[in-house]
Amino acid sequence: MPINQQILLDNRPQGEAVASNFKLVSAETPALADDQVLVRHHYLSLDPYMRGRMNESKSYAASQPLGEVMIGGTVGEVVESRNAKYAVGDKVVGMGGWQEYSVVDANAPGALRKVDTTHVPLSHYLGAVGMPGVTAWYGLVKIIAPKEGDTVVVSAATGAVGSAFAALAKARGCRVVGIAGGADKCKYATEELGFDACIDYKVHGDVKAMAKALKEACPNGIDGYFENVGGWIMDAVMLRMNAFSRIALCGMIAGYDGAPLPMSNPALILINRMKIEGFIVSEHMEVWPDALKELGTLVGTGKLRPRETIAQGIAAAPEAFLGLLKGKNFGKQLVKLI
Amino acid sequence: MPINQQILLDNRPQGEAVASNFKLVSAETPALADDQVLVRHHYLSLDPYMRGRMNESKSYAASQPLGEVMIGGTVGEVVESRNAKYAVGDKVVGMGGWQEYSVVDANAPGALRKVDTTHVPLSHYLGAVGMPGVTAWYGLVKIIAPKEGDTVVVSAATGAVGSAFAALAKARGCRVVGIAGGADKCKYATEELGFDACIDYKVHGDVKAMAKALKEACPNGIDGYFENVGGWIMDAVMLRMNAFSRIALCGMIAGYDGAPLPMSNPALILINRMKIEGFIVSEHMEVWPDALKELGTLVGTGKLRPRETIAQGIAAAPEAFLGLLKGKNFGKQLVKLI
Repeated sequence: MPINQQILLDNRPQGEAVASNFKLVSAETPALADDQVLVRHHYLSLDPYMRGRMNESKSYAASQPLGEVMIGGTVGEVVESRNAKYAVGDKVVGMGGWQEYSVVDANAPGALRKVDTTHVPLSHYLGAVGMPGVTAWYGLVKIIAPKEGDTVVVSAATGAVGSAFAALAKARGCRVVGIAGGADKCKYATEELGFDACIDYKVHGDVKAMAKALKEACPNGIDGYFENVGGWIMDAVMLRMNAFSRIALCGMIAGYDGAPLPMSNPALILINRMKIEGFIVSEHMEVWPDALKELGTLVGTGKLRPRETIAQGIAAAPEAFLGLLKGKNFGKQLVKLI
Repeated sequence: MPINQQILLDNRPQGEAVASNFKLVSAETPALADDQVLVRHHYLSLDPYMRGRMNESKSYAASQPLGEVMIGGTVGEVVESRNAKYAVGDKVVGMGGWQEYSVVDANAPGALRKVDTTHVPLSHYLGAVGMPGVTAWYGLVKIIAPKEGDTVVVSAATGAVGSAFAALAKARGCRVVGIAGGADKCKYATEELGFDACIDYKVHGDVKAMAKALKEACPNGIDGYFENVGGWIMDAVMLRMNAFSRIALCGMIAGYDGAPLPMSNPALILINRMKIEGFIVSEHMEVWPDALKELGTLVGTGKLRPRETIAQGIAAAPEAFLGLLKGKNFGKQLVKLI
């Protein structure tokens, strides 16, 4: 049996998450039961939502149990199978967690999905053609629902969600403005990802400066906002939102550490007759086929060329994850496991 | 020509609105031009939105110009007509403003509406069967969209909007919980207006106490909230909102004086996948016929028996309005002008 290195949640963060919240262990992979398959993971996805799971407090999902393998999306290859529908060599996407191998009851609904790597690299099924891409799709298509010519804004613009959002919004004839941290990311957003403009929040570092920069970048105001961050950036965006504008709320990174994160002026929701809607993409499985089809085509035709930041080896996952929470990644954060 | 007493906006509030912001003047009513009618007002409606119009700052509507008659809804009787569609004696609803008479270009769309006082007293066309009633209807039916058995909550429960909201929600099989200030109002809400429970915010005077009271009054959590107030009461309600719950945002009285009014924990919108939507009922004229029909039937059959607080004479309007902003009214605030 292969040795499987795993990362467990050892203890819960007190405020900011730290490396010592995690623990690396090794175990032999168990023998397979009927219908199970053994998947060797090629990549682990690191995503902001994982920070929420580390807390004990009530959240939209169950807490990550202590002493168990951290949850996480994975892509890999079937290396052993006792399931007639899966053959050794099949490429699959699943929720294998922070470990090198996983044993999967492959008949459970949604447990595994076979993917085709002819036109789409395997790793992209964790990003642009996976959960982050569908997240962007749902927020844009189902909540913001832009019409041609609308101006839409996304925070964390060069991340996996933001880059997919830009390609999807450009395909719908929108003006797309990003917010990102640093000149490199902003340059990449406009030169490679198709953003019409990108604002550096490190340069425009408070509500007033950001609102001014948004006014210049969005001369017709903002019709839709995809919120990945929360806090003062959202306050600034709200000052530039048009009447009947929409905010899709899918992440509030700034709040995961437990610090208070108020919205300064919710009266703007009334003044501008806005709609704000929170969502979790895993609760909308009905849109995944349409979304993945469009995203796969955008990647396959080169219209969406997502960038990846790749850490090497499972032991590197905690530091890479903590860096992600601080915006140190550039594009989709992955851990390569082979 | 009759003498018309009028209240003008004389100067804008610095913070809290005060009586000296207004000015009482008298003028002869002018001679009518073709198609015009002269309406003698029986009642003037006082509503929280007027406070927003008194400010110069950007709001959803144009500011009330200085030196002009304060805007406001009125019901009255045609006393002179040069319009073939209106006869002396017709009862009409319009936006006559804070004055005893108005000259109306009766052919302008939406300027006047004839009403039938057989089953519905004239004053109720400014309340339950008027703008406040339709406001409750839109928020409940179009935004909260409850299903039978849902728990819905409304602040300012005994006001014109809140009382209509209760009747409409009970007709849809909801559990309806109100929030109001004082034991008298809460007793009235449960005994006369059909609320299943009503929480006194003067007794439960902070977020923690209010959240606890809501937990008791809403054992299955809150599915829909109609927000008339904003501030700490909204913070408390948000702590008890269920997954996929909806907030209809139609007033933020607490914020009109310009004091900061943050939302403490907007991350709850994401955690509970909530929808928050601001609206102004005058932008949804398409729903008025259906809404007024249902509201008229509820009043005509005695299922909605709205209470009114009536000030006497146009000179009493400013003080009555300032009292309304502080919750001193009990039910729909009117000024009787005859």
